[in-house]
Amino acid sequence: MKTSKEKRNKLVIICSKGSLDMAFPPLMLATTGAAMGMDVHLYFTFWGMNMITKKTYESLKIAPVANPALPMPNILGMLPGMSSMVTSMMKKKMQKIKMPTIPEMIKTAKDSGVKFHACSPTMEMMGVKREDLIPEVDDIIGAATYLELASEDAITLFI
Amino acid sequence: MKTSKEKRNKLVIICSKGSLDMAFPPLMLATTGAAMGMDVHLYFTFWGMNMITKKTYESLKIAPVANPALPMPNILGMLPGMSSMVTSMMKKKMQKIKMPTIPEMIKTAKDSGVKFHACSPTMEMMGVKREDLIPEVDDIIGAATYLELASEDAITLFI
Amino acid sequence: MKTSKEKRNKLVIICSKGSLDMAFPPLMLATTGAAMGMDVHLYFTFWGMNMITKKTYESLKIAPVANPALPMPNILGMLPGMSSMVTSMMKKKMQKIKMPTIPEMIKTAKDSGVKFHACSPTMEMMGVKREDLIPEVDDIIGAATYLELASEDAITLFI
Repeated sequence: MKTSKEKRNKLVIICSKGSLDMAFPPLMLATTGAAMGMDVHLYFTFWGMNMITKKTYESLKIAPVANPALPMPNILGMLPGMSSMVTSMMKKKMQKIKMPTIPEMIKTAKDSGVKFHACSPTMEMMGVKREDLIPEVDDIIGAATYLELASEDAITLFI
Repeated sequence: MKTSKEKRNKLVIICSKGSLDMAFPPLMLATTGAAMGMDVHLYFTFWGMNMITKKTYESLKIAPVANPALPMPNILGMLPGMSSMVTSMMKKKMQKIKMPTIPEMIKTAKDSGVKFHACSPTMEMMGVKREDLIPEVDDIIGAATYLELASEDAITLFI
Repeated sequence: MKTSKEKRNKLVIICSKGSLDMAFPPLMLATTGAAMGMDVHLYFTFWGMNMITKKTYESLKIAPVANPALPMPNILGMLPGMSSMVTSMMKKKMQKIKMPTIPEMIKTAKDSGVKFHACSPTMEMMGVKREDLIPEVDDIIGAATYLELASEDAITLFI
């Protein structure tokens, strides 16, 4: 459609969620964008820090309550272990269709040039230190640097 | 303000939530955008598949826990049937102000030229087939096609 | 990278969440953007109305279930008072690092020229009146006006 204008070639995503279901979309978009030759940046903030923190990034869980259409009364979604059960069900489905895991997607993203930025105010607030983060993280930046990146005619998303 | 530059005329929204409250914003923006002559695309992924799946799209529910400011202790929001009660309350309010339902908004959107795209990896992961989707869905695409659409100087949102 | 093209100088954020954790990101981005000389607009819709309603804006709460990685079984996150406890813990951490409160951030944003727009259909649906809103709200607009703002080559986010 937009033949008269150059296409945008930059993708800048804010990752703000700490659940497995909301960790997939930014990583899938990032690896796809990088494979298409786009300049891709992920900015991890708030609960999104779970995606790049050593202790948590391999064991993200689904929050079943996030989807009230799941075939179970909400109260069940809240029983201890239920989140783990739904998570395990989804992981099995993902394995079956050979979908990569979060750590695998992070590795692929990194290898294809995606930049990983951790949010400095979040780290200060949550008491997270540089050594708590996975080595794939490129740097620790604030909102101003994010806005600089986003203002360069990027596709912007808040996930 | 931006008098020297043409306005953007494209709107590409990722719909990732399966709850009633988060189904309204993309459909309202889509129908409004289409009425303004914009080229509008909705890309349904993850829980957003509920919005275009025959079994679920007419009975989306509110997740009361999504709003901790609702005037009830959180535990109540989780009792079986509570989500249905809050949903029914909201639906009554919506009827009162003659707000269209989700199926009505989907019809209006479709009639005004909004394009409906289902996410292929989500369908594979969740075992959803083409015949499970409502007929308004135009096609099944992946992240690369989404990024192509978004890179055409579109207003982009992840809902 | 984009040296050949002017940078975007406009930021238009949809605020749709009523929880404390999702009230911070738009306000931090807004105040930072305004400090950088950007033209910043916040459009409050659905649960985001909590951020600009007199009764609620000073007492937003964390929804612990939103983060299944929090170190507690989900069921605990749902006990009455638990949301308050997590909220109070986070507020203490925020005070410790001298992070401004939501009312303070709203004041700073307003003083630096950020525009506050309330969503008219949401107000009608929820029965919210102009006098229920904090005085910082500039006007009440619908989806069409939001799209006009967003189409002016703005950085767009849905939070």
